[in-house]
Amino acid sequence: MLSTICFDADDTLWHNERFFKLTQARFQALLAPYADPADLEARLLRAERRNIEHYGFGIKGFTLSMIETACDVTENRVPGEVIAQLIAAGQEMLRHPIELLPGAETAVRELREDYSLLLITKGDLLDQERKIAQSGLGEMFDGVEIVSEKSVEVYRGIFTGRGLAADNVVMVGNSLKSDVNPVIEAGGWGVFVPHDLQWDLEAAEAPRAHPRFREIRVLGELPGLIRNI
Amino acid sequence: MLSTICFDADDTLWHNERFFKLTQARFQALLAPYADPADLEARLLRAERRNIEHYGFGIKGFTLSMIETACDVTENRVPGEVIAQLIAAGQEMLRHPIELLPGAETAVRELREDYSLLLITKGDLLDQERKIAQSGLGEMFDGVEIVSEKSVEVYRGIFTGRGLAADNVVMVGNSLKSDVNPVIEAGGWGVFVPHDLQWDLEAAEAPRAHPRFREIRVLGELPGLIRNI
Repeated sequence: MLSTICFDADDTLWHNERFFKLTQARFQALLAPYADPADLEARLLRAERRNIEHYGFGIKGFTLSMIETACDVTENRVPGEVIAQLIAAGQEMLRHPIELLPGAETAVRELREDYSLLLITKGDLLDQERKIAQSGLGEMFDGVEIVSEKSVEVYRGIFTGRGLAADNVVMVGNSLKSDVNPVIEAGGWGVFVPHDLQWDLEAAEAPRAHPRFREIRVLGELPGLIRNI
Repeated sequence: MLSTICFDADDTLWHNERFFKLTQARFQALLAPYADPADLEARLLRAERRNIEHYGFGIKGFTLSMIETACDVTENRVPGEVIAQLIAAGQEMLRHPIELLPGAETAVRELREDYSLLLITKGDLLDQERKIAQSGLGEMFDGVEIVSEKSVEVYRGIFTGRGLAADNVVMVGNSLKSDVNPVIEAGGWGVFVPHDLQWDLEAAEAPRAHPRFREIRVLGELPGLIRNI
């Protein structure tokens, strides 16, 4: 008896990681005179991992981690021009247009006829709000939750706060670590829709043997799958 | 018939602006070889104002605006060492300890006996959550709303979402622009508790003649005031 379908937003409903990868390529080009690309990537990832506790998820923290890594890797000899370009790159990311993923709009429109829909996303508050507004999908959701982390406790809090029994809830997303696995652990259903790009900090194992785990290739398969649960 | 008392957090329940002022003093000292302090302050404020649309409120955006201004004012000749110190200053702000304002805890404890309490705050999501957790006051509130902006529409949305009639609600805060005036405009009561430090972007006029406007000097006066509304 499913009642509620929850959707992740970034790289589930619309593209996101590609803007990070593009900026990262620009970062590597800017720092190429000072650092080996592979080493630079590893150091940026280390900075992101170290800083996530304070910065949380999102573009502002990513920009600050790029700047920190640029200072670090050049032993503070990075030219101001490079720093100014990293600031500009972050601001461009915050303005990037929303491109819906194939089948996203149709799946959302179809499912809202029969289910309550929630959007559950993490990242910078204002940036997530902007993307939801620009996506044109905001109005189709019965609720939006922008959270700082997607843990089992956070999902439990959302379900309890909204009076939902976990086994009536499905969470659909491209991250096993943030969308699928914690919801299954909280007692709900997890539908994994892999995206071709994945941020290294989101890597996790798929619980393929779990009875409440499902996997689809594209969102177009979601309404059919939901009807058969 | 008041039912619900809403509190702002930063500089209403605990100190906040002082950490920004301290960092700004450090910023000016670091940039002193390159820029006149008054000019630097004006340029930083212009950057904050320009960027708020994308960054929203909070320490990460403030740090990025400092770095941008440092590049700007030195025509990109700012040493990497200074940038690294600005990054470190931002990270220190994100770790600053919570110091409750005088009377805050007593007022909250006393009022929760008879009223529903909400915390309504803006800023970086994770940073606000950390501060609420560290304040020790989180458990005393019936709800917490972390918003990207405190507009009349946002307050109306919160009140409607929680089934509250605006004229049963009081908002208590140190910002006329963000806490007091929009709630009065939304039909609620506004209690102004001035803090000795105020961010320039929060300046506004006090609606002293309005029947739902009140002003107190310290939070210790709040329970008595509320009982007489």
